[in-house]
Amino acid sequence: MTVAIIGTGITKFGELWDKNWEDLVFESSLDAVKNSNIEFEDINSCYVGNMNLSRFGGQDHIAPRITEILGINKVIRTEAACASSSIALKLAKDEIELSSLKGEEKIALVIGFEKMTDRVVGETTSILAGASHFDTEVINGATFPSLYALLAARYLHETGANEEDLHAVGIKNHKNAMLNEKAMFRKEINLEDFKINIASPLKLFDCSPISDGSASLVLTTEKYAKELGADYVKLEDIEIGTSSISLAKRKELLVLDSAKRASESVYKKLNLKPKDIDLIEVHDCFTINEILCLEAAGFAKKLEGYKIIRSLMPYENINKRDAPIPYLIDGKELFVNTSGGLKAKGHPVGATGAAQVVEVVNQLLGRCGKRNVNPEIGATLNIGGTGGTATFSVLSK
Amino acid sequence: MTVAIIGTGITKFGELWDKNWEDLVFESSLDAVKNSNIEFEDINSCYVGNMNLSRFGGQDHIAPRITEILGINKVIRTEAACASSSIALKLAKDEIELSSLKGEEKIALVIGFEKMTDRVVGETTSILAGASHFDTEVINGATFPSLYALLAARYLHETGANEEDLHAVGIKNHKNAMLNEKAMFRKEINLEDFKINIASPLKLFDCSPISDGSASLVLTTEKYAKELGADYVKLEDIEIGTSSISLAKRKELLVLDSAKRASESVYKKLNLKPKDIDLIEVHDCFTINEILCLEAAGFAKKLEGYKIIRSLMPYENINKRDAPIPYLIDGKELFVNTSGGLKAKGHPVGATGAAQVVEVVNQLLGRCGKRNVNPEIGATLNIGGTGGTATFSVLSK
Repeated sequence: MTVAIIGTGITKFGELWDKNWEDLVFESSLDAVKNSNIEFEDINSCYVGNMNLSRFGGQDHIAPRITEILGINKVIRTEAACASSSIALKLAKDEIELSSLKGEEKIALVIGFEKMTDRVVGETTSILAGASHFDTEVINGATFPSLYALLAARYLHETGANEEDLHAVGIKNHKNAMLNEKAMFRKEINLEDFKINIASPLKLFDCSPISDGSASLVLTTEKYAKELGADYVKLEDIEIGTSSISLAKRKELLVLDSAKRASESVYKKLNLKPKDIDLIEVHDCFTINEILCLEAAGFAKKLEGYKIIRSLMPYENINKRDAPIPYLIDGKELFVNTSGGLKAKGHPVGATGAAQVVEVVNQLLGRCGKRNVNPEIGATLNIGGTGGTATFSVLSK
Repeated sequence: MTVAIIGTGITKFGELWDKNWEDLVFESSLDAVKNSNIEFEDINSCYVGNMNLSRFGGQDHIAPRITEILGINKVIRTEAACASSSIALKLAKDEIELSSLKGEEKIALVIGFEKMTDRVVGETTSILAGASHFDTEVINGATFPSLYALLAARYLHETGANEEDLHAVGIKNHKNAMLNEKAMFRKEINLEDFKINIASPLKLFDCSPISDGSASLVLTTEKYAKELGADYVKLEDIEIGTSSISLAKRKELLVLDSAKRASESVYKKLNLKPKDIDLIEVHDCFTINEILCLEAAGFAKKLEGYKIIRSLMPYENINKRDAPIPYLIDGKELFVNTSGGLKAKGHPVGATGAAQVVEVVNQLLGRCGKRNVNPEIGATLNIGGTGGTATFSVLSK
C-alpha cells in the first residue's frame, strides 16, 4: 500500500503584515485542496503543525480553530519546533495506511504554519529559543544564532572548512530563490555581502529570516489517487528521530544523530542509497546546517560535507546561471534547496517541514517552471531546534 | 487485532513544589514501565501530551527532552489543551495497530503531564485561557471559569436544574477522592461548603484546582501482551472529535457536539450502548461539565443529565458510604469519576486524559482497593477547552 500526495499549497513566505494566521492557513489549504480536485468535505482528518501560536498569538488548542476555519471535524495538532509539520505529515501517512489496511481509503490534509513577524525581533528570538534546552541553554542567554554559531565555529575548527564555505550555501540558496515566486528573498547575494556579524562566525546572510507563511499537503492512497484521476507523487517513506535537545548532552557535537537515524532507517526500508536521490530540501536554518544535514543524510562522510559545497566553485559562477545550481558528488548532480531553502525562501518554523515537501512534490510533477530540475527521486530533511527532532522523507514519481 | 494497555503509572496530583516536570514525567513513566514488566529499552516510541510547558516553563520542543530523560529515540508531542494526552493515546494506538498489521509487535509509551503551580494564579488562568478562542473570548477578558459559568447559568435557565445539582457532583467526586491516595483533595465537602463565589452560579467547589501531575500508559498488542505475560486491559477503541472552539460559534450552546460525535462513532464501531458501560471517567473541570458529558456520552437525553445527578439524593447520604457512589440510571448503577475526577483528584491539564484511562485500567484490573467497583466495561470522556476537542475511549477486561 502506497501513500500518495495529491495536492500542495503554499503561501508566499515573508513579512505578511496584512494577513493573520487564519488567512495563511486558509490560503495554503485551499490551494492544496483545489489542485487535488477534491472538496474540503472529502477530507477525513487534518494534522496541523505549528510551533508556538501560543506565544506568537495567544492561541493554544489550535485544532478546533482549524475546524472553525475549514469545517473538518477531526483535527490534530503536532508540535516539534521547526519540524512540527513534518511530524504532522508522518502521522497523516500512518492514518492513511492504517485505514487502508482496514479497508477504507481516506483523505488527510496536512497544514503547517507560523505567524512570526507580529512581534519585535527580540521577542521572536526569545520564543524560538524555547526549542532549545530551557534549563541549561535558554536560561544562560543562548539563542539559536548563538547555538548554531557554536556549531559553525567548532566545525571550522575541526575541519578544513572556512567561512566562505558557509557563505557559498547562502549564495546558492538566494540564487535558487530568484526562481521561486513564493520565496521571501529574491535577491542575489555575493561573498562581499557577508559583512554584518550576527554571532561569529555567522554573518547576517548565514541566517534564515523570521517569516510568516503556511504550506499544505493532501494525502490519500495511491489507489484512491488513481480513482480520483489526480496527479500525484508517492510518499515512499518518512521517519522520525529524536535525540538530545541540549548541545552539551549530544553524543557527538557535530553529528545530527536524530537525522542520521531517521535517514538510515528510511534508506534501509526502501533499499535506497543517498546517490539515488536527485534533489533534497534540507534544513538550512543557518548555512552550517545545510552542511551538517548533507553529512547526516549520507551524502558526505562526517566532517567532510564542506567538500560538497566546494563543488560550487568558483562561487562567482553561481549568479551567472538562470537555473538552480547543483552540487557535484562523485560526478553526479545533487540539487539541494531548489526552493531557496529556509535561508532565502523563508522559515516560518511550523510551515517549514510541509513546505520542503511541497517543493519536492512540485519538482517531481514538473510544476516549478524555470526552477525545475526533473528529479526522479526527491527527499526532505527537516530539523527541530539544533537537532533534537529530525524527519527524513523520500518521494518519487 | 486488539490493542492492550499493559502498564499504568500516575504521580500524586497536587501542588508539588518540590518536584519539577521532569521528575513527574520520570515518576509516572517509570511506574508504568515497572508494572508492565518491561524495560525502557523495550519501548519503540513515545507520545507525550502537554498543553503548555512553553508558557509554564519556557520549554517548547518537549519530545527530545523526553528522549534525554527516558532514552527513547522516537518521541512525538501532542497538544490539545486539556485533551492533550488522550490525543497521544489515540496516536499511539494507531501506531501499534499499523505496525501489527505490517507484522511487527511494538510497544508504545504514552505520557501526559503539566506543571502548573509554579506561576501565580492569575498567570495560570491566563495561560489556560489560551485554550479558548483568543480573538473573541480571551481578548474580551474571558477565562475558563467565566466561560463555564455561562454554560452553567444557561443550563439552569433552560432546564429544571438548580445549583444544588451542580454541587452534588462536587460532593460525590470529593467523596470518591477520599479513597484515592493519589488525589489532590481527600476531604469531604457538603452543600453548605458551596459559599465562595467564583463566577456565578459556580462556587469555588464547583471548579477543579490548578494542579501538577503526570500519568503514563504502556501499550502493545493483545498478542504481545500475552507473550509478555502481562496483566492487561483491552483498549477497545478511542475516537477524536473537534468542533468550534468559541462558544459563540457552537452549533448548540449546551451540547458538546465534539464529544457526541466521538462517542457515537465508538458506540457504532463496537456495537455498544451507553447502558453497557459500568464506569466512566468524565471531564468535570467544572461540575456543570460532568452533566454535559453524561448527556454527550448518551447516558441522558439533551438537557436531562441533571436528573441523573438527582439519583444521588438525598445528598447527605453520600458522605456516609465508604465506597464510590454510583448514579442510578433506569435502575442500573453507573460509576462516574471514581478517581475523584478532575474536581477532587486534580487537573494537571496535559495529564488528565491519560489519568482518566489509568483509573479505568486499574478499576478493570481490580487494583483500586476500597475504591474498586468491579466494572466489566469502562470508558473515558476527555474534553479540551470548552469542547473544541473531545476524545471518547472504551476499555474492557
